[in-house]
Amino acid sequence: MGTLLKNYIETNQKVFHEELTKHVRQLDIPTSLKKSMLYSLEAGGKRLRPILLLASFEAYASNVEKTYRTASALEMIHTYSLIHDDLPAMDDDDYRRGLLTNHKVFGEATAILAGDALLTFSFEMITNDALLSNSEKVYLIQLLAQASGPTGMVAGQILDMEAENQTVTIEMLEKIHALKTGELLRFAVTAGAYLGNATKEQISYLQDFAHYLGLIFQVQDDILDVTGDEQKLGKAVGSDESNNKSTYPKLLGLDGAIEMKKHYIEKAKELLKKANADTSRLADLTDYFSERDH
Amino acid sequence: MGTLLKNYIETNQKVFHEELTKHVRQLDIPTSLKKSMLYSLEAGGKRLRPILLLASFEAYASNVEKTYRTASALEMIHTYSLIHDDLPAMDDDDYRRGLLTNHKVFGEATAILAGDALLTFSFEMITNDALLSNSEKVYLIQLLAQASGPTGMVAGQILDMEAENQTVTIEMLEKIHALKTGELLRFAVTAGAYLGNATKEQISYLQDFAHYLGLIFQVQDDILDVTGDEQKLGKAVGSDESNNKSTYPKLLGLDGAIEMKKHYIEKAKELLKKANADTSRLADLTDYFSERDH
Repeated sequence: MGTLLKNYIETNQKVFHEELTKHVRQLDIPTSLKKSMLYSLEAGGKRLRPILLLASFEAYASNVEKTYRTASALEMIHTYSLIHDDLPAMDDDDYRRGLLTNHKVFGEATAILAGDALLTFSFEMITNDALLSNSEKVYLIQLLAQASGPTGMVAGQILDMEAENQTVTIEMLEKIHALKTGELLRFAVTAGAYLGNATKEQISYLQDFAHYLGLIFQVQDDILDVTGDEQKLGKAVGSDESNNKSTYPKLLGLDGAIEMKKHYIEKAKELLKKANADTSRLADLTDYFSERDH
Repeated sequence: MGTLLKNYIETNQKVFHEELTKHVRQLDIPTSLKKSMLYSLEAGGKRLRPILLLASFEAYASNVEKTYRTASALEMIHTYSLIHDDLPAMDDDDYRRGLLTNHKVFGEATAILAGDALLTFSFEMITNDALLSNSEKVYLIQLLAQASGPTGMVAGQILDMEAENQTVTIEMLEKIHALKTGELLRFAVTAGAYLGNATKEQISYLQDFAHYLGLIFQVQDDILDVTGDEQKLGKAVGSDESNNKSTYPKLLGLDGAIEMKKHYIEKAKELLKKANADTSRLADLTDYFSERDH
């Protein structure tokens, strides 16, 4: 990763970490609920989604504060989904990013409620954004709910669960990931470009780009589960195999998965060129997504 | 209950049942997710919250369709909270309204996701309402998120859990119920009156009214858990006692709880008179809330 991109990512990780947690810290709510919400928000995610939103915005505009709350709302939704995903009734994970999962620290009931609270509060955050017009707020809330709710991420979770212990086609695998991971990435680029006043055509190319970025993200996730370093990942490898999950390496072999990733990267970069703006940072982020080791 | 009120309630139960389920039935989503969402939406609740919203609106205006989506969003949020509340990690209930609880039919993972989906979709529904302006949508979404999220219902759930196996004061019990039940009732009357173009002063009286209505609702719930009919309630009685929950009868005795209910009814009706509108239906609903046997 180049130094410029590294600085960009690290600087904005700090910005969003502060922005994300600030709003929750200010809430006058029961202590245990606040601790549980903050625990997962502070657990040191890569903040890829808010950074992607910001970079999409910066392809068209420069008053970056306009993205902060929407990007934080997006990261809160991502965080809630991880808390619920890790529950015993779902993936039953004890560790996430090298730390105990939320329910292992606070108990299942509080973890469920902290997830519900983050989901609900993310929409409230957008309504409170003094830098957005009412029509921008309504559009962003609609888009975020579509991306994360029953037609988006939640549908992906259901399909992913149902695909366990079954062999699925590569098309079905792509559909699951498009919903489970891709929809929030699509929201990130759409919201960023929309707030930056991109044209409909530009937004449309970026949405197609986000589709491939989601697939790159997922194929890399699957590859890391085979070849990754447990220390760097902060979680056990080989869990896809033991959970009998359909993955790219399983369907295509490890070499086939790496080839598929290259294909996705080419498609993603072609679409960026068509988006007719300064998308060099988005191209750099694409490389970063595809090469990440955790 | 008078025939007029009975007709009003039954007619509008049908209206909201249809309205609520229609939007979910139209979604293009995985079958198991849709079935799980519809199962709980169709489980025959009393629809008290949407009816309260409607009656508050009708104290000031008459174009009732303006309330339908917001009232449905409110009932969806109530329904999601019941699904998550019933989970083994929370209250661990097998029956609700005489039917198996969501997770007993669809499994815990699907129940968690169906709750998440209903919560998220409720906000989307408001953004899609063709009868509301953008500023109305933003205000209602903000109000609903505040009432249901970490500062509202979710806080109430946390405090309620923490109060188990402890003796709490009557003030603490009122605080828990004000958050857990009261906030959604407060949203119902506030949203209804706001959409009916009530003045700020009128809305303020109705909000205070909703506070007492919530307490009436809860004291009656507690009384029914002692004196109620399991057939009518569709759930076991005596569960508060066996779960060692703080209740009005436990803190004040059964007679004391009934006295307290009378006091709350008086306060509620005083406030309705001050709201300076045709609140006769809200007064009737107060009696209905206080006399309900299920």
